[in-house]
Amino acid sequence: MTERPGEGRRAAVLTVSDRVSAGTASDESGPRLADLLTALGFEVTRATVPDDVDQIRDQLEAALGSHDLVVATGGTGLAPRDVTPQALAGLLEYEIPGFGELMRAEGRRSTAMASLSRSLGGVARRRLVLALPGSPSGAIESLEAVIPLLGHALSTLAGEAGGHPRTATEEAGPWT
Amino acid sequence: MTERPGEGRRAAVLTVSDRVSAGTASDESGPRLADLLTALGFEVTRATVPDDVDQIRDQLEAALGSHDLVVATGGTGLAPRDVTPQALAGLLEYEIPGFGELMRAEGRRSTAMASLSRSLGGVARRRLVLALPGSPSGAIESLEAVIPLLGHALSTLAGEAGGHPRTATEEAGPWT
Amino acid sequence: MTERPGEGRRAAVLTVSDRVSAGTASDESGPRLADLLTALGFEVTRATVPDDVDQIRDQLEAALGSHDLVVATGGTGLAPRDVTPQALAGLLEYEIPGFGELMRAEGRRSTAMASLSRSLGGVARRRLVLALPGSPSGAIESLEAVIPLLGHALSTLAGEAGGHPRTATEEAGPWT
Repeated sequence: MTERPGEGRRAAVLTVSDRVSAGTASDESGPRLADLLTALGFEVTRATVPDDVDQIRDQLEAALGSHDLVVATGGTGLAPRDVTPQALAGLLEYEIPGFGELMRAEGRRSTAMASLSRSLGGVARRRLVLALPGSPSGAIESLEAVIPLLGHALSTLAGEAGGHPRTATEEAGPWT
Repeated sequence: MTERPGEGRRAAVLTVSDRVSAGTASDESGPRLADLLTALGFEVTRATVPDDVDQIRDQLEAALGSHDLVVATGGTGLAPRDVTPQALAGLLEYEIPGFGELMRAEGRRSTAMASLSRSLGGVARRRLVLALPGSPSGAIESLEAVIPLLGHALSTLAGEAGGHPRTATEEAGPWT
Repeated sequence: MTERPGEGRRAAVLTVSDRVSAGTASDESGPRLADLLTALGFEVTRATVPDDVDQIRDQLEAALGSHDLVVATGGTGLAPRDVTPQALAGLLEYEIPGFGELMRAEGRRSTAMASLSRSLGGVARRRLVLALPGSPSGAIESLEAVIPLLGHALSTLAGEAGGHPRTATEEAGPWT
């Protein structure tokens, strides 16, 4: 695990928002997430998509082909057009429940409303996929909450740290 | 968001219990939940149903037609007849994982047994549905844990607070 | 609920690991879990299985026939061969979300990596099934986190403590 978990890796940031896609609102979360991921060493690309299940899924699938980490922001709340988790449900091979639990638990330090976010982390085609809130503060705080996990998660998914520690020597390694 | 989250809204309380339905046990949780919801400003109706998946689902569906919030109490444990979450699985459009996480996390302050409750919150037909424990203390403590979320959740589901904050001005709003 | 939750009960420990099954790694987690369960009063049997969905499921199903508690260790991480939760998905009647939440929350006191474990608890054929990390420390710490729940969970599943508390007298009992 390198100190900068993004070193040598590519990340995609997908802003999910009808209004940003239509050009009637400015995107703050996407650029801020991109800056943070760049600071972590990732080579970052960005895209925007409306709150539409099929379009979100298509964009996520396209991003999976060439990125180690795919981060969506927006569409995790309860508004009628919030459908990002539904789009991910058809795409993920499995969820990693600790990501959502941790993002909400940390978010509650800022606001009780963090409990309403259906943020999540999961795996598709051996890539790590995160769905973060759409608000800039919610998005950044959620990503910050899981930074300590990124290096080990990405190297394990890539098969660089496979297997389970089974001997005393290995025990100092991963806990999972 | 009003100070009293139930102002101008209707809530249904559904007591799920074979024994209460058969008249062989008194219902304490239902009336207590109704009192608390009334104090929060809701207009409350109550009903009782046995621990039967089909009957629970039918009653929940009926309640969804005319209430903003539907609260079930009972059937979230591990007894052979505890089937409320199973009944909800076929009904909910999606779960809001933070509700169950928060109810159990807060419940653990009272008793370790709170971890055994399959309490949950979710959305069906744009209504908020909660499944709470059947014990009076478990039910009340679980509802109390999520009171801070009710106003924003119900107004967002109703489309009164749609969209995602995308500008600095909006950032003071919802985090999701 | 007895003080020793395993008194009069049987537990199976299933070590899920390609390398242990192939004899190329020693099994530390399985024996340690067996020792802990024995100390809790359980009569314990052990088995080993490779990281293969079908073989894991077959072994779990076999164990369900004659044990009150079935504990798998290994395969909860993100490595390509980590498939224990996938194997359980086809077997469990329902999940008990508080088990995974509690194991990860307690695990985070030791290491942030605990959030990456897809540990879980659930019910199949009225038996309690736990999936724990494969590392010895992760496995033991996760089991220790849920020991306070075992007695009530197993007696409720066995129908020994059925029903919901509905009167003031009963209220001192289970919270679920």
